[in-house]
Order: sequence, then C-alpha cells, then structure tokens
Amino acid sequence: MTYGTIATWRMAHEGVIKAQDILKKQGKAGDAVETLINTVEAYPYYKSVGYGGLPNEQGIVEMDAAYMDGDSFAIGAVAGIQNVKHAVSVARSLSDEHFNSFRVGTGATQYAMQNNFEIVNMLTPRAKKIWLNRLAEMREKNLNPYDGHDTVGAITLDKQGSMAAATSTSGLFMKKAGRIGDSPLSGSGFYVDSEIGGAAATGLGEDIMKGCLSYEIVRLMGEGKSPQQACDQAVYPFIEKLKKRYGKAGEFSLVAMNHNGEWGVATNVEFTFSVGNETKAPRILMANPGPDHTTSIAPITQEWLDAYEKRIKTPIN
Amino acid sequence: MTYGTIATWRMAHEGVIKAQDILKKQGKAGDAVETLINTVEAYPYYKSVGYGGLPNEQGIVEMDAAYMDGDSFAIGAVAGIQNVKHAVSVARSLSDEHFNSFRVGTGATQYAMQNNFEIVNMLTPRAKKIWLNRLAEMREKNLNPYDGHDTVGAITLDKQGSMAAATSTSGLFMKKAGRIGDSPLSGSGFYVDSEIGGAAATGLGEDIMKGCLSYEIVRLMGEGKSPQQACDQAVYPFIEKLKKRYGKAGEFSLVAMNHNGEWGVATNVEFTFSVGNETKAPRILMANPGPDHTTSIAPITQEWLDAYEKRIKTPIN
Repeated sequence: MTYGTIATWRMAHEGVIKAQDILKKQGKAGDAVETLINTVEAYPYYKSVGYGGLPNEQGIVEMDAAYMDGDSFAIGAVAGIQNVKHAVSVARSLSDEHFNSFRVGTGATQYAMQNNFEIVNMLTPRAKKIWLNRLAEMREKNLNPYDGHDTVGAITLDKQGSMAAATSTSGLFMKKAGRIGDSPLSGSGFYVDSEIGGAAATGLGEDIMKGCLSYEIVRLMGEGKSPQQACDQAVYPFIEKLKKRYGKAGEFSLVAMNHNGEWGVATNVEFTFSVGNETKAPRILMANPGPDHTTSIAPITQEWLDAYEKRIKTPIN
Repeated sequence: MTYGTIATWRMAHEGVIKAQDILKKQGKAGDAVETLINTVEAYPYYKSVGYGGLPNEQGIVEMDAAYMDGDSFAIGAVAGIQNVKHAVSVARSLSDEHFNSFRVGTGATQYAMQNNFEIVNMLTPRAKKIWLNRLAEMREKNLNPYDGHDTVGAITLDKQGSMAAATSTSGLFMKKAGRIGDSPLSGSGFYVDSEIGGAAATGLGEDIMKGCLSYEIVRLMGEGKSPQQACDQAVYPFIEKLKKRYGKAGEFSLVAMNHNGEWGVATNVEFTFSVGNETKAPRILMANPGPDHTTSIAPITQEWLDAYEKRIKTPIN
C-alpha cells in the first residue's frame, strides 16, 4: 500500500514532512495527522492556529479543532475552547467517546483540564500587539474588523490503508466571543472515508458550511472522480450558486486526497498547500482559480517563500 | 404554488398546524418554521426541547438550535446556549449576519442578552425532579446516563416557493457540559435549498454527524429522487455502513420535503412525525423501518396518542 499527506497553507509544510516520515515508517494515519497539526499549533509565528493565534474581539484566543478516523467515521471536535495548547489532540481524544464527542465553550475547556491536556495562555505578546493595533486601526479608520481565517486542515493515508482528517484554527481574527466556523463541523470543514478519500477546508467558515463541500468532494471521489475532478466539480459551481443566491461568497480553499495517495485542490483565492506521497517528497505548491472551473497549480518560488518568512516575523510595534 | 410543512415527532404537531395556517395565508416559510419551533420550545411537558427540556449532568439546560434560509443558504446557529427561551429565534437572528453567525457557549448567551431575547431559567421544577431521580438511579443501578435526545426539526415551503429549515433541542439528557450534537450542524442536523427541498434529523447526534445525511437527502432529491426515495437511499445504507465500520449505530430519524410539498421519512426506530401540505391537513403519522431499505408509515392510533399524553404528564415524585 502507498501513503500520503496533504494539508492547507504553507504553514503546514514542516508538519507534512513529519507526517510523511511517520507514514513512511508504517506509522498510523491518525498519529501522522495529529503530529502534523500539533506542529502548526506549536509554532508561535502562525497567526491563525494554536499558540500565537489571533484572539477574538475581547482579546481571548478561542480555538476550534476536529479529528476524524476514516476507518470508523469516529469524530471528535471542540469549538470555542480556551487555554489549550493542542486543541486537535483534545478533539482526537474525544473521538474515542461514543457520546459527548463534540464539546464547546467552557465544557470543552473543562474536558481538556480533566484529562491532563497542557494548559497555557495562548495569547502571545506578539498576538496581543496585533490585536491592540487592530482595535486602534478600527477606531481610527472605521475598518471591517475581520481579517485572516487560515485553518490548518490535513488528510493522511497510511500504508495499512487507513486515512484520517484533522483541522485546527483560532478562527476569524476579531471574531465575536463564541463564534465558530466550519473547521469543527463534519462534512464542511473535513470528511474522510478510508475506502474513498478525505477532504478539508479553509476560508470563511460561515460560507463553507453553506455547502458541505468536504463531504461532497469525498462523495464525488466515491463515484470514481479523481481528487482534482472532485474538487473542481464540488467547489466552483457551489461558489457560483452562492454568489447568485446569497449575493457574495467568501474565501474557499479545499484540499483532497484519495485512498491511492492522489490529490487535488480547488480555491477562489491564491492558496498555498503542502503535499507528499510515496512517489514525491513533500513540497509546497501554489494554487489559483483557473479558467472554466479548473485549478492552476504551480511550484512555489523561493522569492515567495522569502517574502512569507519575512512577513510572518516582521516586528510588531 | 403549493405549500407544506413536515416536522419530527408528535410534539411538533401543534406547531405544524400553526405553520400551515401561516403558509395558507401567504406567510413566509421562515416565519412558519420559527413559529412551529417556538411552539415546541414553549411547551413545558416536552422534555427534549426548550422550556422543560432536561439538563446536562450538572443540572444546567444547554440548548442547540439552527435556522437555514433555502433561498439564500443563510445559516444561523447556536450551541450550548443557556437561559434563552427561544433558541431557534436567536439562531434565525444570527442568520442575518455574514460573519459570526454560529455562536457557542457563553458567547451565544451573551449575543441573546445583547439583542433583547427573553431570558428565563429553562430548568422547570419537573425537569429538575427528573434529573435528580436519574442521578439517584445511576448511583443505585450503575445505569448508562444517556436517555432521550429528541430534536424538533422542521422544513417549510411557502406559496412563493421559498423554503426554510430549523432545529431546536436541549440535547442528550445528562450530557457532559458543552456537549453538542448534530442539530446545529449544517448538512447533518438540517439542510435546505428552495430549488430542491429540505431535510432535518433527530437521533444520536454523535452518529448522525458521521453521515451528513440531511445534505445527502437534499442532494438525492436534486437528482430527481422523490423525498421518500431520497430518505431511504441516504439513511439505510449509511446505517449499515456505520454498523460495519463503527460497530454500532445510534438512533436515526430523518424527515424531508421537496419544493412541490411532497415528503418522505426514514428511521431505524419507531418514529412519529407531523406533516401537512396543500392537499392534506396536518396529521400525525408513525414510521418504522420496513423491509429492504424501505419505511413503513401508518396513521397514529388514538390509543397511542392517549398513552403519550398520559406519559408526558405523569406526576414525577
């Protein structure tokens, strides 16, 4: 059997490398996807996931995460959880429960405390400065508060043929307290069936949940479509339908991998992702919407990577 | 254009009558579905929805609700909300927001307070007695704490051709704090597209969200299946798949209506529902799983109704 990993955004790349290393050595899809997401959660310069994630309008970092086992369909999820270093690990732990496997708010945080998960203040000094600066900007310039909502979402396939999906995010910067997006919602933020494949989403959760696109991509792969065909067919017509019916559509970017380690993506914005399988080592690629409901995919340039590295570490005054 | 309403459980019937009355007089699908759910939420003898709903293990009533507009796909949802008389009305209000339209926990309750929704203690003396009795029983007999998780879910179609879906529940009796089920989750607890139809679910949320069955039923209706065919084809094979892959399957009951006012249901347990359309006045029916992935539907008997009425009002010591 083959193996593979795909995950949203350039930020996932170091985690994808670790996941592929686990999978190469006969490790499990669930362990690989959790390690991948934990790597992103722990890195303080990623502003939209885990430690260093940007807070809600009150200055509180509230996180959403989910885990799904593609063999059993077991799902664990948390939303609006606070002070937890690794939200996805809490979600994975909940996936072992038949009841009470999706927990929100204080109840979710209590579950993490009762089960010895690491508790830290997730608001870094850097994130606090960004939040205070944004509050000041909003007062001065009457700006829309919302900016940035990059979820890490990932799919893994192991040599035993098992698949897993997971997501983690601090959600929309400046969100209202208790706001959650698509990331913890089965079928919207993620879905995986080891006999078919999996998909995960990033973008404006409020709009992604209107389409159940992760489920739809997996369903289309189950009909025999390639991951790229499934992504294109699920995502672009829905975005058009949403513009017509809702009047607008937020950002949508989805990644998918099937049980052969083949992959696909679709997006309506410039979108980076990282992918590896048995035949190709993990690499960062960039996707853009192409003509006629297709997706253009190109290697990332060193120039882009350098600019990104500089941007995420720019000192904040 | 025609009109119609379908909703889960016998408890929805009085609300279905009110909804049909609104729809008959050219009222809107959204107003009809909200009135329907509000009627169930306000009735103190229904133990699984709104006022009189059973609490979590700590004795706190935590509610989940959602609203979806089938014209625009606008969705509003709340989960783990406390002290709010009409959770579905809070969800409907949130559906007007492009951002922050799904709120959980304290943030959800704060939104309701800030927007002048009625705040009451949702724990009735009767529900408190049931909770205390169950705690004692659990101590004495080492019982599984979970029992009862009947969501009211409804679909309405108005004469203008618009459709709406909504759900409301106090969730699993004796749930852990912050536990949420499928009811507020798009695609799992509900889904509606006015050009096709809508579906809503009740049962064990943890298992229903593994299948995205409300979305799948709507999708099948969009392929030209009748609501009954769509329910049968979405629900029964998934329950079999879940038993095979997860080892077990909780209770699943789904209702659907298409944009012509035709309807269908599927269930793996004895399941009552209420339905009306332009040609038939609202009536309570009973569904049971039939042979070969079909559903048996029969009129409710007066004997059953009398026993139900007696049961829900039995004095609690």
